[in-house]
Amino acid sequence: MREKLYQIIKSPTEGNSETTLYDYFMMVVIILSLLPLTYKPEAEPHWVIYVEHIAVTIFIIDYILRWFVADYEYPGLKLPFLQYIYQPMPIIDLLSILPGILVSITYHNPEFMTLMLLRLTRLARVLRSLKILEYSHSFRVLRAVIKNSIRPLKAVLAFAITYIIISSLIIFHIEPGFKDFFEALYWATVSLTTVGYGDIVPTTMFGRIVTMASSIIGIAVIALPSGIVTAGYMKALEEEEEETNKDLK
Amino acid sequence: MREKLYQIIKSPTEGNSETTLYDYFMMVVIILSLLPLTYKPEAEPHWVIYVEHIAVTIFIIDYILRWFVADYEYPGLKLPFLQYIYQPMPIIDLLSILPGILVSITYHNPEFMTLMLLRLTRLARVLRSLKILEYSHSFRVLRAVIKNSIRPLKAVLAFAITYIIISSLIIFHIEPGFKDFFEALYWATVSLTTVGYGDIVPTTMFGRIVTMASSIIGIAVIALPSGIVTAGYMKALEEEEEETNKDLK
Amino acid sequence: MREKLYQIIKSPTEGNSETTLYDYFMMVVIILSLLPLTYKPEAEPHWVIYVEHIAVTIFIIDYILRWFVADYEYPGLKLPFLQYIYQPMPIIDLLSILPGILVSITYHNPEFMTLMLLRLTRLARVLRSLKILEYSHSFRVLRAVIKNSIRPLKAVLAFAITYIIISSLIIFHIEPGFKDFFEALYWATVSLTTVGYGDIVPTTMFGRIVTMASSIIGIAVIALPSGIVTAGYMKALEEEEEETNKDLK
Amino acid sequence: MREKLYQIIKSPTEGNSETTLYDYFMMVVIILSLLPLTYKPEAEPHWVIYVEHIAVTIFIIDYILRWFVADYEYPGLKLPFLQYIYQPMPIIDLLSILPGILVSITYHNPEFMTLMLLRLTRLARVLRSLKILEYSHSFRVLRAVIKNSIRPLKAVLAFAITYIIISSLIIFHIEPGFKDFFEALYWATVSLTTVGYGDIVPTTMFGRIVTMASSIIGIAVIALPSGIVTAGYMKALEEEEEETNKDLK
Repeated sequence: MREKLYQIIKSPTEGNSETTLYDYFMMVVIILSLLPLTYKPEAEPHWVIYVEHIAVTIFIIDYILRWFVADYEYPGLKLPFLQYIYQPMPIIDLLSILPGILVSITYHNPEFMTLMLLRLTRLARVLRSLKILEYSHSFRVLRAVIKNSIRPLKAVLAFAITYIIISSLIIFHIEPGFKDFFEALYWATVSLTTVGYGDIVPTTMFGRIVTMASSIIGIAVIALPSGIVTAGYMKALEEEEEETNKDLK
Repeated sequence: MREKLYQIIKSPTEGNSETTLYDYFMMVVIILSLLPLTYKPEAEPHWVIYVEHIAVTIFIIDYILRWFVADYEYPGLKLPFLQYIYQPMPIIDLLSILPGILVSITYHNPEFMTLMLLRLTRLARVLRSLKILEYSHSFRVLRAVIKNSIRPLKAVLAFAITYIIISSLIIFHIEPGFKDFFEALYWATVSLTTVGYGDIVPTTMFGRIVTMASSIIGIAVIALPSGIVTAGYMKALEEEEEETNKDLK
Repeated sequence: MREKLYQIIKSPTEGNSETTLYDYFMMVVIILSLLPLTYKPEAEPHWVIYVEHIAVTIFIIDYILRWFVADYEYPGLKLPFLQYIYQPMPIIDLLSILPGILVSITYHNPEFMTLMLLRLTRLARVLRSLKILEYSHSFRVLRAVIKNSIRPLKAVLAFAITYIIISSLIIFHIEPGFKDFFEALYWATVSLTTVGYGDIVPTTMFGRIVTMASSIIGIAVIALPSGIVTAGYMKALEEEEEETNKDLK
Repeated sequence: MREKLYQIIKSPTEGNSETTLYDYFMMVVIILSLLPLTYKPEAEPHWVIYVEHIAVTIFIIDYILRWFVADYEYPGLKLPFLQYIYQPMPIIDLLSILPGILVSITYHNPEFMTLMLLRLTRLARVLRSLKILEYSHSFRVLRAVIKNSIRPLKAVLAFAITYIIISSLIIFHIEPGFKDFFEALYWATVSLTTVGYGDIVPTTMFGRIVTMASSIIGIAVIALPSGIVTAGYMKALEEEEEETNKDLK
């Protein structure tokens, strides 16, 4: 019976229909459990607390069920039922349940916790949305591309950050309008990524020259991830094709 | 005679000059029929209603003519003249004619319909512009690319939406300036796509840090469709070349 | 002697050092001749008129010299010295000289022409800058890429314009803030190209939803030229390599 | 002993652990030495001057150590200890140390130098950050891509600048809002790179038409670096693979 249970709740790599059903059910629950986050604590409608309670209860059951079949999920562990608690995914699962329990306490004893702490728990609850990535097939293709490209993308990231810092240092000392270095850093990031809100703009001629040079070079910097991801995607397609050919033989 | 008629109005895959002529005529009519939409209902000049009437009349004739040769266009159907009405393209055709007829009623009996409904019909008329896609050759090449790329693009879309929602949730609870969650969602979408209007900007330090992290990661997210489309386009070119080689043999 | 002259002024495909020298000289003259355009007519300094006079004189000499060797430049023409005037490049050359002559008249007889006409001639003078493209080597590589990609890019352009028009039509009827359809068209273009000035932004919820959908789909539209240009560039590199291999054999 | 020293301070191509350690140490020192730059001269905290002193001292020691093993680092030179001073990298090293020494003078003799000069030295100190590029492995991969792409990227840069200048010239004479040509140039650069701050926007119909045309063509211009970098990256990957295959044989 425990094996049957594991077949249902494990990740859906083998296309078992019960597994897929369980996954879709969990995805709906996760999305519903994020609903309370779309309200400010002071403007939260009443029904939100019930949604929260139901979602947390389902998460707790899911956590216990997974614990129950830990020896199937982690066959390499010596003491699976004890070591399960210290595995990375179960820890994230537990962290994403915790705020829900804390919220329940807050509602029963309002003096117990301050509004500030409640906001903190809300932030922690955002972690829960990461669980969505666990339950979806289409992301696995992208994950292969990202895996292929992660090393050069890290180098580009380091390059872009260096570029942003140099731009910030130059503009911070040339343009008098910046309050502190962080503002210059924010301006350079928003400009390099071509978002360009326009809340902070250069007003002096030298500041504008730096902006122009920085923007033009920035296009080449932005072109780098594009090239890397394209190459990574083409490699992933080739590997897939090779595997299909192997399977046919 | 009905076969000759079908030769004229069918889609121009075989480069028949009469077909092409009919297509260009219809494209001009469609563009003219969109003219009323470029005016607000209260500021609409008089001549617009005549353009509308002529365009709708031509559309009705086109619809009847296509019905008349339905057995040529859909050879697989058993009762082509009856089943034609339920085919997807004829339904869109009919929907795009309907507002025109409704507008005529509105103008003859002004008490009949409210201004609000008229606005709704105007929106529905936008659907008509989709017909342009039906009548143009150059889009067929792009359609092949889009077809090649549609599955990974959907995965990227899901990834981007997840990314936008997570960014929105974080900024909504960190930055005090947002009225509701929808505003945070709007801000995140406008920022990730690097449009960056600047109507909603972070003002606190934490909000700006989230913006910076979000923008930099966003570049990699934007690079994904670029890579997918490039691969899809190169595949489409290869397939075309192979087909040309086959034809030559 | 006329052949020697032709060797000097012809386009520098064979790397003749005198040709290259002449090209660089002409490029400097063209850039100098654009200087008057960087001033508003009412704020133009005095020395600008002398720069203009010298540049126009050199252009006239260049035009006459090219006429003088027209039979070498256009060996296919029957009456090269007569037909030269009607060739596309000489016509552009003449058009770019004309404003300079007109400006001279304006300065000698100020009553002769209005300020408005002067502005028009100034705009026409911008055409002159197109001549720069004629005198530079590095652009020829890019021209090959653009030539490879021009047909699919045109299809993408048609696609993007259709997309912009549909977005404009929808937002124009949903968002009350737009004065006329042109403003909606301007907004859609600035948003799709991810420039996003923020001078016109949606303020209603429905307007923002349209903006969000439009921006996200827009990323895929922007990815198309990127893919086409990448494929076109790779093809250009391959062709170049093949040619080099042929030359070596 | 001098050979051992050279093993430690040389660039880490052979993965020597002592070399890597020295590199990481120097990277930390360089980043720390940039800290004073993140404060405005008038708001600089006291401890910053000590950080500056320590960093400059380490840089001087590094400079002397490298001089001491100049014959190992530049084996081709006849008089390595004399010619070392005129090598490009040592000159940059010296330039990046100089402001630190000048700052010390400023602090001991405040009358000696004006605040303005101090700002200039601060700018020069930004050069120091270029040293970071010297001490990092991950940038070497990117450097190969950039090297592959630098020639076509230069052509694109020239193309983009020509495009920006033409756009500026046209908008400057059509749109009355621009103060001088530099403002038009700044506007065109910010628009072409799709940053789009929105601090300078067209308000007339003709200005907006120019903006729309310019933005749409601009997308193709931005697609060019993307294509070039993609091709350059793929070539770099192929070359790397070929080299690995050679090493295996």
